[in-house]
Amino acid sequence: MGLTEHTLPEHPLRAFTRDVFIAIGCPEQDAELAADVLLAADLRGIDSHGVARLSGYVRLWENGRLNARPQIRVVHETATTATVDGDGGLGLVVAPYAMDIAIEKARQFGSGWVAIRNSNHFGIAGYHALKAVAHDMIGFAVTNASPLVAPTFSSERLLGTNPICYAFPAGQYPPVVVDMATSAAANGKLEIAERTGKPIPEGWALDTDGQATTDATAVKRGGALLPLGSDRDHGSHKGFCLSATVDILSGVLSGANYGPWVPPFVAYLQPVAGQPGNGIGHFVGAMRVDGFRPAAEFKTHMDNWIARFKHAQRIDEHQGVIIPGEPEAEATRHRQSDGIPLVDAVLRDLQALADKFGLIPPDRRSHS
Amino acid sequence: MGLTEHTLPEHPLRAFTRDVFIAIGCPEQDAELAADVLLAADLRGIDSHGVARLSGYVRLWENGRLNARPQIRVVHETATTATVDGDGGLGLVVAPYAMDIAIEKARQFGSGWVAIRNSNHFGIAGYHALKAVAHDMIGFAVTNASPLVAPTFSSERLLGTNPICYAFPAGQYPPVVVDMATSAAANGKLEIAERTGKPIPEGWALDTDGQATTDATAVKRGGALLPLGSDRDHGSHKGFCLSATVDILSGVLSGANYGPWVPPFVAYLQPVAGQPGNGIGHFVGAMRVDGFRPAAEFKTHMDNWIARFKHAQRIDEHQGVIIPGEPEAEATRHRQSDGIPLVDAVLRDLQALADKFGLIPPDRRSHS
Repeated sequence: MGLTEHTLPEHPLRAFTRDVFIAIGCPEQDAELAADVLLAADLRGIDSHGVARLSGYVRLWENGRLNARPQIRVVHETATTATVDGDGGLGLVVAPYAMDIAIEKARQFGSGWVAIRNSNHFGIAGYHALKAVAHDMIGFAVTNASPLVAPTFSSERLLGTNPICYAFPAGQYPPVVVDMATSAAANGKLEIAERTGKPIPEGWALDTDGQATTDATAVKRGGALLPLGSDRDHGSHKGFCLSATVDILSGVLSGANYGPWVPPFVAYLQPVAGQPGNGIGHFVGAMRVDGFRPAAEFKTHMDNWIARFKHAQRIDEHQGVIIPGEPEAEATRHRQSDGIPLVDAVLRDLQALADKFGLIPPDRRSHS
Repeated sequence: MGLTEHTLPEHPLRAFTRDVFIAIGCPEQDAELAADVLLAADLRGIDSHGVARLSGYVRLWENGRLNARPQIRVVHETATTATVDGDGGLGLVVAPYAMDIAIEKARQFGSGWVAIRNSNHFGIAGYHALKAVAHDMIGFAVTNASPLVAPTFSSERLLGTNPICYAFPAGQYPPVVVDMATSAAANGKLEIAERTGKPIPEGWALDTDGQATTDATAVKRGGALLPLGSDRDHGSHKGFCLSATVDILSGVLSGANYGPWVPPFVAYLQPVAGQPGNGIGHFVGAMRVDGFRPAAEFKTHMDNWIARFKHAQRIDEHQGVIIPGEPEAEATRHRQSDGIPLVDAVLRDLQALADKFGLIPPDRRSHS
């Protein structure tokens, strides 16, 4: 139910996504950029962060929580640092704007770092960090998110799944892209378990009393996700520390909200009262590789690093070490030629958006 | 056995440590700095990284793997980035040298980042990151280390426990210091379990066949530590990703060794042949808080962040959320006034060093 897959070519899906953003009032250039960020997730195989979220952004806009024509501006700046106010715009547009500033600063001074406030969900962190890689730079992107994760020793949702992303250029291999939530498991994994009626492994979530649970509906019913590490014995305080770092860089440093005050992505949930900042926050950065050693030399050693890890001793002969970013690069090659699989529920969601805005749905558009 | 505790005041222990470094040929200023880094670990309660390691540094020197009088130099530089060659010196001296460069760059341009090659073990990462905090900057410090950790899907030791440290200034509260190994558990925890004859929790280590084990001697007998997350279901690929990030920043970017080639701290183990770089690597950085928002404003919000997390809903009424860096700040206050506890084995180790170099041992020095 809802899991039947349809496969749509990239281009009509991209054009449809852009048209939806135009329909809610985004300038054409912003709409194309936002579509590019969502499509990048679908191409990279991160289906939870692609067009599956399009209707979510539209609902935020319908609820007056998304500014389709933001005046994004730099509110504070040094040679290599800046704070950007996203004016309530799409994170999909605000974050690339900020990353361009970081890259330009890095081009001039070696590195550039931009904190962003008053933004919304920015899609996959990898998109933003990879912009730097295209300039032979190391890219960095983090964001806070609405609270679902409890710190170690607490049952209270105080942190988002707050992802961390580093992207490094390589030579013959695809860039190494570390792009990971700092929770033990993503909420989407609980939803999949719930749909298929399966229990979840212990160590993913707590129930409302703060007790370990295997109930896939635990978080939906008021429980909390656990930080990476799952429990104290296995280092959950480290997952908490990482998530806290992301929250401080994204929220406290930028002037955005942080902790329990980060506004929810889902439009039917209202932000918590007494917010200490504006919108959600991100933090992005770029460093020139040749600020440290010649880029060609670095890439040769990256290739050597990758090759050594790929050929590591296997436990199961059928499964080698996975280099971060390689499955996503493979998925992109595959999906660019063969199309993007969408589950039934997502396709119906897109069809409903087509109806709402009088657009040709993506599955009825031509392939060019 | 070996676990009896002696308590020594800070000052004689510090003076003794300095004298040992002078005895192996370090210039007096370097010896004082190295002692300061080791004592910082003991004061902060991170006993594994303090004077307990002093004899280890001496053995490295005896084996010709430590240069007591290095010519540390900048080999590559932009306005906000640099690469430092540590000339085989103590990481305890090389890393602060590099951090001073990062801080000066941040003072001038907003941020500064320094990759370090040809170094040795640098003590606790927190020491280096906290140097930035003293200037109202955010500090960052990572280092690679000799291989003990297997990547997800492999049984081979390819990564160190590669710590990550971020330090943030606060207002009324101590700085928030995230300082964490990227493995599920530190090797020291296995050693403690072994000494007390206890099994270790599943999820800390693999045996030589790559199978889960509760044997505390598993790593000693050729097994491997597991990355944070422990197994694939609980996100060990994320711990692997973090450790890989540290290895790339510290080793690949700087021109140090990386992966399985990082030379061991223990002097009786020889480095693996075919090293692609020089020594071990670190990466440090500093960003001015007021490069993003006024420092006072940031600190007020840090205090608000800390207070909110401290008062989070508890699972067990006797245990609140631990703010990263707070237990270490408390330990420092306590140990500065009441002294530093040393287990018997460590005190005997120091007494043996006193014999070797004809020094007054720390427990027979006056307290001033």
